[in-house]
Amino acid sequence: MTTLSDLAVSAAINTTSALAFLLVFALLRLQPINDRVYFPKWYLKCKRQEGTKRNGARSVSNIINLDWKGYLHLLDWTKEALKMPEPELIEHAGLDSAIYLRIYLLGLRLFVPMFLLSAIVLFPINATDDKLQDSHRFLFSNIDKLSISNVKDGSKRLWAHICMSYIFTGWICVVLFREYEKVMLMRLGFNDAQRRRPDHFTVLVKNIPIDPDESLGLHVEHFFRVNHPDNYVLHQVVRNGNKLAKLVQKKKKLQNWMDYYNIKLLKNPAFRPTTKTSYLGLWGEQVDAIDYYTKELEDLTTQIKTERKKVLDDPKALLPVAFVSFKGRWGAAVAAQTQQTKNPTVWLTEWAPEPRDVYWRNLSIPVVELTIRKLVMAVAFFFLLFFFMIPITFVQSLANLKGLSEKISFLKPIQDMKFVSSFLQGFLPGLALKIFLLLLPTLLMFMSKIEGYTSFSSLERRSAGKYFIFLVVTVFFGSIFTGTASQQLSNFVNESPSEIPSTIGNSVGQKALFFVTYIMVDGWASIAAEILRLQPLILFHLKNTFLVKTERDRKKAMHPGSICLDRNIPKIELYFLLGIMYAELSPILLPFIIVYFGFSYLVYRYQVINVYDQRYESAGAFWPHLHTRIIICLLIQQISMIGLLATKSADKSTPMLIVLPILTHTFHLYCKNRFEPAFSKYPLAEAMAKDTLERAVEPHLNIKSYLQDTYMHPVFKEAEDTDSDSEEFDQDPPLVPLKHSLQDGTPVPSASSATQMIIRYQ
Amino acid sequence: MTTLSDLAVSAAINTTSALAFLLVFALLRLQPINDRVYFPKWYLKCKRQEGTKRNGARSVSNIINLDWKGYLHLLDWTKEALKMPEPELIEHAGLDSAIYLRIYLLGLRLFVPMFLLSAIVLFPINATDDKLQDSHRFLFSNIDKLSISNVKDGSKRLWAHICMSYIFTGWICVVLFREYEKVMLMRLGFNDAQRRRPDHFTVLVKNIPIDPDESLGLHVEHFFRVNHPDNYVLHQVVRNGNKLAKLVQKKKKLQNWMDYYNIKLLKNPAFRPTTKTSYLGLWGEQVDAIDYYTKELEDLTTQIKTERKKVLDDPKALLPVAFVSFKGRWGAAVAAQTQQTKNPTVWLTEWAPEPRDVYWRNLSIPVVELTIRKLVMAVAFFFLLFFFMIPITFVQSLANLKGLSEKISFLKPIQDMKFVSSFLQGFLPGLALKIFLLLLPTLLMFMSKIEGYTSFSSLERRSAGKYFIFLVVTVFFGSIFTGTASQQLSNFVNESPSEIPSTIGNSVGQKALFFVTYIMVDGWASIAAEILRLQPLILFHLKNTFLVKTERDRKKAMHPGSICLDRNIPKIELYFLLGIMYAELSPILLPFIIVYFGFSYLVYRYQVINVYDQRYESAGAFWPHLHTRIIICLLIQQISMIGLLATKSADKSTPMLIVLPILTHTFHLYCKNRFEPAFSKYPLAEAMAKDTLERAVEPHLNIKSYLQDTYMHPVFKEAEDTDSDSEEFDQDPPLVPLKHSLQDGTPVPSASSATQMIIRYQ
Repeated sequence: MTTLSDLAVSAAINTTSALAFLLVFALLRLQPINDRVYFPKWYLKCKRQEGTKRNGARSVSNIINLDWKGYLHLLDWTKEALKMPEPELIEHAGLDSAIYLRIYLLGLRLFVPMFLLSAIVLFPINATDDKLQDSHRFLFSNIDKLSISNVKDGSKRLWAHICMSYIFTGWICVVLFREYEKVMLMRLGFNDAQRRRPDHFTVLVKNIPIDPDESLGLHVEHFFRVNHPDNYVLHQVVRNGNKLAKLVQKKKKLQNWMDYYNIKLLKNPAFRPTTKTSYLGLWGEQVDAIDYYTKELEDLTTQIKTERKKVLDDPKALLPVAFVSFKGRWGAAVAAQTQQTKNPTVWLTEWAPEPRDVYWRNLSIPVVELTIRKLVMAVAFFFLLFFFMIPITFVQSLANLKGLSEKISFLKPIQDMKFVSSFLQGFLPGLALKIFLLLLPTLLMFMSKIEGYTSFSSLERRSAGKYFIFLVVTVFFGSIFTGTASQQLSNFVNESPSEIPSTIGNSVGQKALFFVTYIMVDGWASIAAEILRLQPLILFHLKNTFLVKTERDRKKAMHPGSICLDRNIPKIELYFLLGIMYAELSPILLPFIIVYFGFSYLVYRYQVINVYDQRYESAGAFWPHLHTRIIICLLIQQISMIGLLATKSADKSTPMLIVLPILTHTFHLYCKNRFEPAFSKYPLAEAMAKDTLERAVEPHLNIKSYLQDTYMHPVFKEAEDTDSDSEEFDQDPPLVPLKHSLQDGTPVPSASSATQMIIRYQ
Repeated sequence: MTTLSDLAVSAAINTTSALAFLLVFALLRLQPINDRVYFPKWYLKCKRQEGTKRNGARSVSNIINLDWKGYLHLLDWTKEALKMPEPELIEHAGLDSAIYLRIYLLGLRLFVPMFLLSAIVLFPINATDDKLQDSHRFLFSNIDKLSISNVKDGSKRLWAHICMSYIFTGWICVVLFREYEKVMLMRLGFNDAQRRRPDHFTVLVKNIPIDPDESLGLHVEHFFRVNHPDNYVLHQVVRNGNKLAKLVQKKKKLQNWMDYYNIKLLKNPAFRPTTKTSYLGLWGEQVDAIDYYTKELEDLTTQIKTERKKVLDDPKALLPVAFVSFKGRWGAAVAAQTQQTKNPTVWLTEWAPEPRDVYWRNLSIPVVELTIRKLVMAVAFFFLLFFFMIPITFVQSLANLKGLSEKISFLKPIQDMKFVSSFLQGFLPGLALKIFLLLLPTLLMFMSKIEGYTSFSSLERRSAGKYFIFLVVTVFFGSIFTGTASQQLSNFVNESPSEIPSTIGNSVGQKALFFVTYIMVDGWASIAAEILRLQPLILFHLKNTFLVKTERDRKKAMHPGSICLDRNIPKIELYFLLGIMYAELSPILLPFIIVYFGFSYLVYRYQVINVYDQRYESAGAFWPHLHTRIIICLLIQQISMIGLLATKSADKSTPMLIVLPILTHTFHLYCKNRFEPAFSKYPLAEAMAKDTLERAVEPHLNIKSYLQDTYMHPVFKEAEDTDSDSEEFDQDPPLVPLKHSLQDGTPVPSASSATQMIIRYQ
């Protein structure tokens, strides 16, 4: 049993490391040399450039900050993070980011009042009972006295907990409802206020049947000219650019090596660098590096040209997938929401994702394969889920060092070393879990890609869904139930349905302290690590030293990253689960969660403003996902609560709680019905209104030329780019790698509010 | 334990009664006096009239059949039933009826090959083992030796059953797939080939928001003129005619009494009939009947006139519901499949049901109420489901007379009377269940009406869904598990999930003989009763004697009835469950089910051709419902099989079966995706093709005048009708109630194929 002092050590370690990260961050961000690591967003928006502050003079002050005044305001970044108002934030970083930040606010809005109420009502009720003093069956720490475990079986005090269940459920529903409504209105407002976007006019058509008599392009055109005669404008059949994309990718790598050796040569012209021909330059024949890469690059450039020409000309490279555009938003809305032919597996239409959001690779998957792929992935996920639990449970057992050392004698000395023991107890279990979970999202994203979703946003939502199941099963249930994974699974199957809630209800109370540790390691420390950006910091400086030749290269080296929705959202959902679960059982957990939400809000707001560059804009399409998951958390809590009360032999009061899940489910259905269509459909009235307005404002708009080539596989553009790049390079290689080269400040658009912001932020 | 001789008695009773019903039917249908009871369909189509066969001469031969030749061909009706080819049947009775008949054929197609295979493979395998001879734990009858119960635990013979599981599942899926495809094509072909129907152009719009500035009608018109500018034609706002409908209904009743007394007076002019003023004429003041009813009718006519005027003029009688029609099918398809405004709870559009199919009463339910109504009904259904089981279980316990008489001594003599005992054992349990279940569909339909569905077809599907759950839980599980309803429920909750399949698998084999009895009572006997039409026969003759004055009255008295999909389909689904379940466990059940399907097919085909008059045409909209339920039956069988094999300690082979439910579920998803849209959506390409064709064929069609007033509450027309009726009656009462009055045969449309049919059928 984890004791209070273990907890104190763990808290001390985690708080210290979090504070240390923050201090390092506060110092590093002031150094101009790191400017592109901590403010890449502004560089991408062309609103910040090196040295502008120093009036263009090159000096050591461009590398490190010598101005002592700056160090007096180490914590200014928190102020900066909070300063920008929300509408400006939406304009600056997009709606997805703004809505993402609202999740943290939602957490605060939920849990702060819940904690206050718990502290006033439940603490006195729990603390003044004395079950834990009477019984010697359980080991317990002082914190447990504040939890429901201290209330005697069958006590009338449990009525207070039942009332709180109703109050909490009501409160959560009210807050969730308001937030859903607000997010929906933000989404609609955003779509309304936005500039024209090609995806408003475009529909993605999949599984176009082959017509033996005409080409694919003509077939698409005829079909839509006939069936949407007043609306059809143009179409772009998708070409299979996967092979070309691979070649371009390979060329980029070679180009990097080429640059590296060129720079090496320039620095030391006397010594021509050599390389080996085989894998990673480690084996094979020794050759002159620059000659070798020049040759390889030339070969590849020819290959790319051939492949590009082939893909663009060959009708076999055409996929039965097309982006079809319409004259107005109304026409596109109609085409996206209706069935086209009597065979519902061909001419499948759906809203086209934003051009940036398209995951081109999956467009080449035949529709018939999709069902099989999904089935296979579902089975794979099931096995992954349950075999993954074995190492977790092993690490879990470490946390109970006392029990372990009783069995294994050589652990005894470790346990006697007070500090080491506390360290192991408090820090290790959470950390090991963390490392496991770090590798997971990539795997899940890979699985989702195999499932064949065609946009990044849907891929991320799908991954997030899997990850949430993972977190709930492995972290939450995996911590509550002990035993190996297969034991747990067979327990679940062999126990009666009425026993499972009791088991959860019973053990969940005893695990509060473990979850406090988890929150500190996974929550606090990792958020602090997030703001430090250690990996991008190192990568940037490495690239800047070895690869960067031009301003554009430096821009490429920045790696601003983006909010990984597929990693972050499930984690937040887990904290919602913990918060909702422990609000009644052991409210002492809530302050830790509140600190997590508050701290995360601050850090992510700062990062959104200064760092992240979102790959796409889905206008908050992830909210229904989040809302549903929070409702699931609430249901898990209610069922556990029923189970717990049943074991506390509160027979009279337990049936009172059965109404709660039913009401919650009804609330969920209502919300789904009320709000979800706004996230998946484009209402005709809105579409018509925007079309009419546009026609009045811009009567001579040529929609055809606006839409031409908007949905083109980016690799075709890139292939062109790299062509011109390499030619440029061949003709005129830069003489010196420009580190922090100074350029005339390109004039910043003066009238925009963003300019004022830059001034404020510098 | 039911023995073989019990079974024989039961089979004898049921077969005899079924044959008796058939004989009576064969005799009655030959009597001209019953012509309107057994051939109402032809009268409604104006293709048959009394006395046409006898060349218009009134004689006793118009009442009973004196032609002895007719009696030689008693069984001709079976030939008649099978003679009409399917396309003609569709034209004659509609697609719903034709597809309904295919369900029975589907049963035959499934179970005949399954029985043959079982008989060849499983009978020898089961019969040559000897578990039941070894063990004395179970009482068993000879039939059980052919079932899987006779195979020893852990025997290698069980591999045969596992193989059969795969073969059967594969066969069922193949047949279901082909049938679904066929039905879908029939539906699409039917819609294609059909004449213009108003519901193809019309969309039902619900929850229209109130606009304070304009009337509801104008608001609807403006909304659709703006958002569907090229397609909108007209709209019909629905008026609340519920009160008027009640008044009209009441008037019809009074009119019936009035007619009754008028006829009484005419027969015996010396004696003026009297009645009492209160409930049903049983209490209250004695008054002259004709004066009293004349007065009452006059009052009611005035009331109806006032109410009708009020409803038609008062804007408050307008409901926020409208039928909106479009210029073409394309426009209607677009409006029906898209979301109209950003608030998804207003301007809800859906396909309008056929005018005959609209359930007007529910159109007045506010949309916000619907969620609550559904929730309440779900809870009510849950309670109904589990408290309903108490009487069933009581009756079940009767079947085990032996066990009962051991406890209750005075039952001993009954058990000793061999025949009575067998009768009770074999006949009573099924009969009692049957009486219970007879009352149920009406209740379930009532519950579905409360849920607020707005078309008869959806009401029937909804009721059928509930009834299916009922049948599965009460008849199937209720027979398998013994004990009271609450015991069973608590068993289910307290048993572990892995035990439930074993329990089912274990007991299901022992219940085979009970289900044979059930099939004979519920299936065979009730189908024979169906063709006899005893209730309509009596009612028709009563009405014909006491109420009928004119030819139109006689038409009204016919009551052809229709196939009650909400009663029949769940029953058929239960037989599918039994068939699929016992095909492996105890294949001896299959012949009984095959006889049921064959006999039903014959009887219903006869009835569809000669009797039933469908209230509406949904073009087979119930098929997805049926398909899903059969898949559910298959899943229940697979899970029971896993449980059974687990208890037979076939540990190695059982896991082989776990793949089956997963495959079945995948098959279901595929079918859903592939076929279901054809039952809920109108594809745009089809709509456009039909529109284009129509425009070419009828360029001057005035669609507006075609659609005008198609969606009008029938009560407004009826109110008019009854007005004119009563006036007509007041002015010119017929002097004599015309029984079998002869009229000049109205000329039958000569060119149609139907005429030839009539000749053939007379």
